[in-house]
Amino acid sequence: MGTLDRVVHSIVEPDPEDSARAQKRLDRLTKPQGSLGRLEELARLVVGMTGKKNPPMTDKVVFTLAADHGVTEEGISAYPKEVTPQMVLNFLRGGAGINVLAKHVGARVVVADVGVASEMMTHPGLVIRKIGPGTRNMAHGPAMTRAEAVSSLEAGIQLFEDEYRTGIDIVGTGDMGIGNTTSSSAIVAALTGREPEEVTGRGTGINEARWKHKIGVIRKALSVNRPDPADAVDVLSKVGGFEIGGLAGIILAAAARRVPVMIDGFISGAAALVAFHLAPNARHYMIASHVSVERGHAVVLERLGLKPLLDLDLRLGEGTGAALGIGLVEAGLKIMTQMATFDEAQVSEKVDP
Amino acid sequence: MGTLDRVVHSIVEPDPEDSARAQKRLDRLTKPQGSLGRLEELARLVVGMTGKKNPPMTDKVVFTLAADHGVTEEGISAYPKEVTPQMVLNFLRGGAGINVLAKHVGARVVVADVGVASEMMTHPGLVIRKIGPGTRNMAHGPAMTRAEAVSSLEAGIQLFEDEYRTGIDIVGTGDMGIGNTTSSSAIVAALTGREPEEVTGRGTGINEARWKHKIGVIRKALSVNRPDPADAVDVLSKVGGFEIGGLAGIILAAAARRVPVMIDGFISGAAALVAFHLAPNARHYMIASHVSVERGHAVVLERLGLKPLLDLDLRLGEGTGAALGIGLVEAGLKIMTQMATFDEAQVSEKVDP
Repeated sequence: MGTLDRVVHSIVEPDPEDSARAQKRLDRLTKPQGSLGRLEELARLVVGMTGKKNPPMTDKVVFTLAADHGVTEEGISAYPKEVTPQMVLNFLRGGAGINVLAKHVGARVVVADVGVASEMMTHPGLVIRKIGPGTRNMAHGPAMTRAEAVSSLEAGIQLFEDEYRTGIDIVGTGDMGIGNTTSSSAIVAALTGREPEEVTGRGTGINEARWKHKIGVIRKALSVNRPDPADAVDVLSKVGGFEIGGLAGIILAAAARRVPVMIDGFISGAAALVAFHLAPNARHYMIASHVSVERGHAVVLERLGLKPLLDLDLRLGEGTGAALGIGLVEAGLKIMTQMATFDEAQVSEKVDP
Repeated sequence: MGTLDRVVHSIVEPDPEDSARAQKRLDRLTKPQGSLGRLEELARLVVGMTGKKNPPMTDKVVFTLAADHGVTEEGISAYPKEVTPQMVLNFLRGGAGINVLAKHVGARVVVADVGVASEMMTHPGLVIRKIGPGTRNMAHGPAMTRAEAVSSLEAGIQLFEDEYRTGIDIVGTGDMGIGNTTSSSAIVAALTGREPEEVTGRGTGINEARWKHKIGVIRKALSVNRPDPADAVDVLSKVGGFEIGGLAGIILAAAARRVPVMIDGFISGAAALVAFHLAPNARHYMIASHVSVERGHAVVLERLGLKPLLDLDLRLGEGTGAALGIGLVEAGLKIMTQMATFDEAQVSEKVDP
């Protein structure tokens, strides 16, 4: 059995007893039962996912995976593809949105090149696991071979496992890749059966004309490649991206290790959908940090049965929404572990049934 | 001119030039314009409120004001009124929800007794500015005199001013008082003209029968006292609470000092509504942290024209939602001040118009 199959088969459903015990504990704290709403839900979920009574939040890791997309040849983005490696450098220097927000919540950022078209200079902060120099143009044929798709998933698994040795209590997913909302929309259309216009947004901010063109390109990619919706690896290979495959691999590896995964925006959502199609149980380890402005993200969340924590009109990617979500999980766990109980604080209890 | 009038008259509208400059700066950062949505909005707003180019976020203060309500005699709460002083002790010992969440975002909590019915023991962490030993039962007559209502507003102003000398960059509002959702619903009904059932919720978690009873009590309080909707001090005195007046005073004082105010849930919302009726310009210094489960909160936010940042099914009060909101403001300001610009990072710009 290959690495991917091994990971997929080792993902188990959380034991509902664990979260029930967590809720019991939350109900003893000096507050009306359930009055901290989704913060309590987060604590309960993370106890269930990890199987730990007091899940630590010491090692918070956001993986920001970068790759290029051949489909940029079709002029579907508002930015030139040179921006992908330029932004990777920006990540490494600490100047990007994800650097600021990860630091804000005490998370470290792991930046990985899984398929940037140009050669990145070596940098102590950069992990290089390149599957290829960007995907091929999906408007003319498959974005990658099936073997490359599996490699991208396994690269994500390997990235997770390497970092897991240092310690990971929660994972955030992040992406960088000019053109990757186009790939993500194609994946989501293929896996959900929705029309391209229902799941295609403005990406980095394209105008109306380019948006219509983008939808046409996605439509063409789907008709040229005919991805099989029953086979997520086929979908990933034909219309996906290396960073999307990598993120799906990270999600699967985290689920196999019972580590909670904070899903970022639309690109991460497409990766989560791929992971879910490969291993439905992986869903139990996912938390949706936010709902993006990007049309199609809400479709993904609905399909995954995830209710987003935040709705802040974000559409940057990189893992920025995931970082904010990680901060909320930590808040929920602190509520569970640091608040006094009614007994400890000698506070009177409810008189009503 | 009294303290209250002086403060009310010194609240000025922010200069839109300041926020426009902040947005210009945000637009130079290495991200598609506007892609960090409401985080950018927060940075822009706080620059406008403070008039400072780089608003500091060193001194974050949550004021949690406690008081009792005579209307608890009517049996409108799920908890006995002894819980008010018991929870104050819990705040002072650091065991409550607000202690945990304030610490999580690096804020300090100022706990003040502005009208707890019993004598609180002296404690170095407790500020005592008692207007009276709880309000009178509004179902039978005014909750307080007009002079007491003004005193509660001025107590809030004084609390703010005392703490302002230590330093305040942002304020969060918080409350503790068994019975205070009943007062808040009555205030909101009086000031907005909405029916009591439209603005009355389950508070700490009452059952259906008690909820109907609570609405009846509010209806009775409004008909017995006939608060004048054109006179917010009259409304506060007849159906309000000392902590609600105190919070309205804090909001006014903060607005006068151009300090952003993070509004917590329903009780804080009722206080914000009182402040807004006294000084419409105060609204420009308010940020709505979240929308509470408590019915009536959405009505308040709509009236104030505020869009909540979070929707996490919270209904605890104490300032817990405000603490989370303060964390988001800090994130937004860090985005503005810590991210690299396109020029600095040598990242290519958008090709589209």
